[in-house]
Amino acid sequence: MSNPILVEARRGALVESRHRGVVAVMDAAGKTVLALGDVEQPVYPRSAVKALQALVLVESGAAERFGLGDEELAVACASHGGEPGHVATVVGMLARAGLTPEALECGAHWPIHQPSAQALAASGATATAVHNNCSGKHAGFLCAACALGVTHGGYIAPTHAVQRAVKATLETLTGLRIDDDRRATDGCSVPTWALPLSALALAFARFGSGHGLGAERARAAARLRAACAAKPWHVAGTGRFCTEIMQRFGARVFVKVGAEGVFCGALPEQGLGVAIKCDDGAGRASELVMATMIARFLPTDDAERAFLDRFVRPTLRNWNDIAVGELRPTEVLEFS
Amino acid sequence: MSNPILVEARRGALVESRHRGVVAVMDAAGKTVLALGDVEQPVYPRSAVKALQALVLVESGAAERFGLGDEELAVACASHGGEPGHVATVVGMLARAGLTPEALECGAHWPIHQPSAQALAASGATATAVHNNCSGKHAGFLCAACALGVTHGGYIAPTHAVQRAVKATLETLTGLRIDDDRRATDGCSVPTWALPLSALALAFARFGSGHGLGAERARAAARLRAACAAKPWHVAGTGRFCTEIMQRFGARVFVKVGAEGVFCGALPEQGLGVAIKCDDGAGRASELVMATMIARFLPTDDAERAFLDRFVRPTLRNWNDIAVGELRPTEVLEFS
Repeated sequence: MSNPILVEARRGALVESRHRGVVAVMDAAGKTVLALGDVEQPVYPRSAVKALQALVLVESGAAERFGLGDEELAVACASHGGEPGHVATVVGMLARAGLTPEALECGAHWPIHQPSAQALAASGATATAVHNNCSGKHAGFLCAACALGVTHGGYIAPTHAVQRAVKATLETLTGLRIDDDRRATDGCSVPTWALPLSALALAFARFGSGHGLGAERARAAARLRAACAAKPWHVAGTGRFCTEIMQRFGARVFVKVGAEGVFCGALPEQGLGVAIKCDDGAGRASELVMATMIARFLPTDDAERAFLDRFVRPTLRNWNDIAVGELRPTEVLEFS
Repeated sequence: MSNPILVEARRGALVESRHRGVVAVMDAAGKTVLALGDVEQPVYPRSAVKALQALVLVESGAAERFGLGDEELAVACASHGGEPGHVATVVGMLARAGLTPEALECGAHWPIHQPSAQALAASGATATAVHNNCSGKHAGFLCAACALGVTHGGYIAPTHAVQRAVKATLETLTGLRIDDDRRATDGCSVPTWALPLSALALAFARFGSGHGLGAERARAAARLRAACAAKPWHVAGTGRFCTEIMQRFGARVFVKVGAEGVFCGALPEQGLGVAIKCDDGAGRASELVMATMIARFLPTDDAERAFLDRFVRPTLRNWNDIAVGELRPTEVLEFS
């Protein structure tokens, strides 16, 4: 059975492209609020669960021990743009644990943020692991390894104490046992475990509200949410969706993109978790669906609706800045 | 009705993402050789028809009059990477018609080829229209306008003589009348007319074989094919699929990518035209489907099959160069 078409790309009078996908919205008690498509199909959450992976950073005592502030905790939850401020935060965070960027095992890529990549190239330097969009998450893993008193080398392996703690956290949050055949390797070389979108939405409902979590975990989740709300630029970067949404809505919305068309988030005041996967892996579509879910489930005023509408129905412009089409949600999302 | 899943992206033991789409393979007499999905649905061909748009450049007499060689004709058919050699060819082509890059109306973007973009930024310069991947096509339009004796300013408008000639060419090649409601604006601001994939495949069967064309058009098509076969680097650039395929197969294969998951091509010796559209606009999938069609319909030896297999089943590697998955064709393509 096919998942429904969630997003259409229009050009001129015609639909040019179509994105199918799955959406799950759950509350922390496990009640399904919205389910479109096959919400039980396993999905690699990729970077969309960085905030859940970062729970280990707080719960290990590393955040306390190394005096990590909002910027450090936000960048640990980030797919950042590799802008100079992101890099400086990651380097500083590592230094607090007595480490240098050489400890990062995420691999190198050029900053996602194009002006930063060009400035780096212009300076005669090249991309290193610290520019990798996952370097903050990896700095968090390294700090956690130090706090746990285990060797930090090889922290990306599924058998390392940090990754075992991450897996146990995901199992508790989702209420599922994760078999080894659901494990793959992420772009930054840590494990990514496939989970049903319904379980991911439940995990984010719990992460967002604290309901169904132990007291220590609820405090850790609240600490990470507060850090991201306070420093949304550190979670993504200039002009990026996650940053713009959390800058506008503060603690009312938590959102995090993942590769291959995944998006997760929480509406803490509504007690809801949201998980989205576009079948084809298209980020432009998953972002639009997340904006549509916020518009649908978050009580908003007129100005906030107008703000969201930019993301719900983005205009497509060409190299001469001529409007040539738009992306728009289909009626399946009750927003056409 | 849904179009079939043509390509799967696998990670670990699971399918992570899926690409649906449509494939049409036709011969020049209009016989359907392969039709997967709705081949009658209109598709904006975007840059995949640049070689058909370039017929006007040859037929207007501009190629002859301005002494354009293989490099210039190939770049007129190109979505080039904006590498220095591409830029030099475009600038030289314009100079032959007494024009400068200021005449280009395609809009500016940074070179697609990342090292070239970084070198440009490092030099302190910025992107201009000549770096636009379509600048060769636009240089071709400008040369055609000069040869036709019409004002070149505004050559991107649907009402301009050059664009009317392009439309008439597409109508003749496809045997279809194109209504105005099928016209949209492309990324580089020229018109793009939606056509059924079956008609696009027919047009490329004719372009590739000369069958069903008048003598003058058949000569123009052969001239453009020969130019692309001789100078495939000018059609795309370093490391790009169209370049690598035509470098390997020469005049036996013509291929051209278009935006939003379109691919068109011809197998001249087989008399076949191929047109592909991925529903979701994914270039990684349309490229793989094109490679699969070449492997299926072009007689090849073992070395050529091994060469093609790199594109039929590309390995997905992460930032540490670890193999994390693969793209692969589904059984629908008879290649699983």
